[in-house]
Amino acid sequence: MSILTRHPRAKGTVMVLGGDGFCGWPTALHLSNLGYEVVIVDNLSRRKIDVELGAESLTPIATMEARLAAWKEVSGKTIRFVDLTLGEDFHEFVELLSEVQPEAIVHFAEQRAAPYSMKGARQKRYTVSNNLCATHDVLCAMVEAGVDSHLVHLGTMGVYGYGTAGLTIPEGYLPITVQTANGPQDLEVLYPANPGSVYHMTKTQDQLFFFYYNKNNAIRITDLHQGIVWGTQTPETARHEALINRFDYDGDYGTVLNRFLMQAAIGYPLTVHGSGGQTRAFIHIRDTVRCIEIAIANPPKKGDRVMILNQMTQTHRLIDLAEKISEMTGVPYEHVRNPRVEAAENELVVSNEQFLALGLNPTKLEDGLMEEVQTIAKRFAHRCDKSKIPCVSTWRRDEPQPVETTEPPLAATA
Amino acid sequence: MSILTRHPRAKGTVMVLGGDGFCGWPTALHLSNLGYEVVIVDNLSRRKIDVELGAESLTPIATMEARLAAWKEVSGKTIRFVDLTLGEDFHEFVELLSEVQPEAIVHFAEQRAAPYSMKGARQKRYTVSNNLCATHDVLCAMVEAGVDSHLVHLGTMGVYGYGTAGLTIPEGYLPITVQTANGPQDLEVLYPANPGSVYHMTKTQDQLFFFYYNKNNAIRITDLHQGIVWGTQTPETARHEALINRFDYDGDYGTVLNRFLMQAAIGYPLTVHGSGGQTRAFIHIRDTVRCIEIAIANPPKKGDRVMILNQMTQTHRLIDLAEKISEMTGVPYEHVRNPRVEAAENELVVSNEQFLALGLNPTKLEDGLMEEVQTIAKRFAHRCDKSKIPCVSTWRRDEPQPVETTEPPLAATA
Ligand SMILES: NC(=O)c1ccc[n+]([C@@H]2O[C@H](COP(=O)([O-])OP(=O)(O)OC[C@H]3O[C@@H](n4cnc5c(N)ncnc54)[C@H](O)[C@@H]3O)[C@@H](O)[C@H]2O)c1
Ligand SMILES: NC(=O)c1ccc[n+]([C@@H]2O[C@H](COP(=O)([O-])OP(=O)(O)OC[C@H]3O[C@@H](n4cnc5c(N)ncnc54)[C@H](O)[C@@H]3O)[C@@H](O)[C@H]2O)c1
Repeated sequence: MSILTRHPRAKGTVMVLGGDGFCGWPTALHLSNLGYEVVIVDNLSRRKIDVELGAESLTPIATMEARLAAWKEVSGKTIRFVDLTLGEDFHEFVELLSEVQPEAIVHFAEQRAAPYSMKGARQKRYTVSNNLCATHDVLCAMVEAGVDSHLVHLGTMGVYGYGTAGLTIPEGYLPITVQTANGPQDLEVLYPANPGSVYHMTKTQDQLFFFYYNKNNAIRITDLHQGIVWGTQTPETARHEALINRFDYDGDYGTVLNRFLMQAAIGYPLTVHGSGGQTRAFIHIRDTVRCIEIAIANPPKKGDRVMILNQMTQTHRLIDLAEKISEMTGVPYEHVRNPRVEAAENELVVSNEQFLALGLNPTKLEDGLMEEVQTIAKRFAHRCDKSKIPCVSTWRRDEPQPVETTEPPLAATA
Repeated sequence: MSILTRHPRAKGTVMVLGGDGFCGWPTALHLSNLGYEVVIVDNLSRRKIDVELGAESLTPIATMEARLAAWKEVSGKTIRFVDLTLGEDFHEFVELLSEVQPEAIVHFAEQRAAPYSMKGARQKRYTVSNNLCATHDVLCAMVEAGVDSHLVHLGTMGVYGYGTAGLTIPEGYLPITVQTANGPQDLEVLYPANPGSVYHMTKTQDQLFFFYYNKNNAIRITDLHQGIVWGTQTPETARHEALINRFDYDGDYGTVLNRFLMQAAIGYPLTVHGSGGQTRAFIHIRDTVRCIEIAIANPPKKGDRVMILNQMTQTHRLIDLAEKISEMTGVPYEHVRNPRVEAAENELVVSNEQFLALGLNPTKLEDGLMEEVQTIAKRFAHRCDKSKIPCVSTWRRDEPQPVETTEPPLAATA
């Protein structure tokens, strides 16, 4: 329990953009439980993409109406839901902002699957226009409505690229030295971006929106560079069947650790892409919602630069994860071709001191893994459509067998 | 005359995206004259924005049909024109690419006025979605059509930001030193972006499109970071009345030097924004078309990183320009409030060795200034609508009198 939740008091309103999604839904409940007035904005596009892909959450998620009614029933609290498309329904959004005057706006509302963003021209173009126009609309509407809300955005560790050669990934800003006519000069710059997919690319472009609107309009922004989220339930989503969170396992939206867990539950050999030498950063969904709570409670001051925090708690090599889960469950793993254009091996050392200093007490892999396999993956295994497991999106149109490349450290492009 | 034009030979096809615009039209004629097959793609949005603003080119520009007929008449050459919107008419564009298989694609097709991009929510949102979706569509369509064209994009010196404290702005990539666990390491990174308007912001985001598509799909790209273009005519546009190039002088689209020239021609006190201590990079339109010619003739090799060239020939402090023109013409200058959020003073030292090494022989200010005043500004002075001269767009919604800020060097954001 955090220092913040120990002393409940009257709280302001928080808008949760993308509040029907995997991270957004538990966040909305967590904030409502803490006493915030919560307004969810979502266009249900994620559910529609499930329809497009013929895929479904492993867990049986309820409609938004049923979700909100169940939450009212168990908590007595009302969450408001507004169905609108950020990036399109600009004027409705400006009006909503003016009316609600939120203390904070948490922005999850983007197309977030890297494989989906590489599927074909339609998905690439959708990811670019949806994510960039949504993020820009949020900023532009804040200026237009004249609200002084704190914008909390979900970015990704993937903006940094992977391959850091002894460099600890700092929280957003990199200290560098450049040579000038007046001798060497020390500066701090936005960490050079090195995205690994069209999806990640849009997140690196989001950073420039934030940089500019913060500089020109003094908008207070926290950008959370999140690791890969695993787990399903939070204390709030576990309170009622109709509150259950989504669990994606398909080749496009399923993230690596949840895919392994589900595969273990149904006895499907764990699919390790390539050598599995890639190291990635992770965070449990319970910690995601806590981090958002902490970010909202610690806004930057007017005039501060964009605050960037690394929202992750552990790093793991994918092959180590597969071995660990395989050992625990007796299900073997298998190397399959890697559809991505990425380095076969990388090290990854990430600084995340700010969240720890602010009171985050992480859920470690060891603590949550078996619970997840038992209560979610095994329980809903009968709902799994095995044909949706393989990742069929490829990173290069003309190359059914993408080669693994070695990425240079940072965005060095020589 | 360049080495390239001395030996005319059969040349391939070049697509000129935005070929009805101020830079695109003279480029199309220049390339056609050199023997390239030229296909212009443009949606005439620039002319429509003139309608929206109630503004007009000082020079009487002909319709596209009349332009192409006149060119046919004086040169015997046919230029093809396709009216489509990049960012929207994706499939038409893919088909066009497949059919034409251009050797090079020169991409001018963006909303390019900083003041227009700051006018209000509509213009900010249009600039973002038009520029980002157009640039992404070009790249995505190249992958989709499977063409191996060389993409030549017009970027801006403005992506670097101004305020470099002894640092010569390199051609795109900055050598830096970072501290790692293994000691200091030298790297070269994309120059940290520091845009000064929503328009400039989209250009910094374009760079990330290029970085990613070059890395993932090995697309050959040259990004020309262009200074402020001045002058009007090239040898080709001067060959027929109906070929005349546009000359913008209004508060949104008029760029600083052309505005001074026109103001001098009509005896309107030159409008110096703020102290005029800002230093900017310039290039004459005749050199713009030569640079494009040189860039096309020197494509990067497959697998090379994005080639970035600084397309500018001189830097000037705005107040020095005003003084020089005032002295030459006897028209006084006046300090008016600066609508922009920018540093009041900056130094600017820019590296442009690559174009000089490739044979560019720049038109200096001294050589072109009076010609421009006499043959364009004075000649068409009767067409000037003085009410369109002031820049009424402001950078901050709530601040009718923007304060001048001091920008840190680079994108340092501390
Ligand atoms: N899940 C992860 O592992 C992970 C890791 C790092 C970062 N993130 C980031 O966190 C955020 C949330 O991720 P998630 O896993 O919850 O994704 P999700 O797809 O489950 O949720 C996103 C929600 O936003 C909505 N949405 C999308 N575009 C919208 C628009 N234009 N207007 C209105 N609503 C829109 C969708 O309908 C969906 O409900 C994303 O920005 C993602 O990039 C997620
Ligand atoms: N003019 C300058 O001083 C200057 C300086 C630096 C860089 N640049 C860059 O050079 C390029 C050309 O500038 P310009 O001065 O010729 O601008 P311009 O506005 O005169 O020309 C741009 C042309 O592109 C077309 N266009 C815009 N969006 C389009 C779309 N989505 N689909 C199809 N056509 C579209 C317009 O109709 C117009 O004819 C721009 O990218 C600009 O940023 C210009």
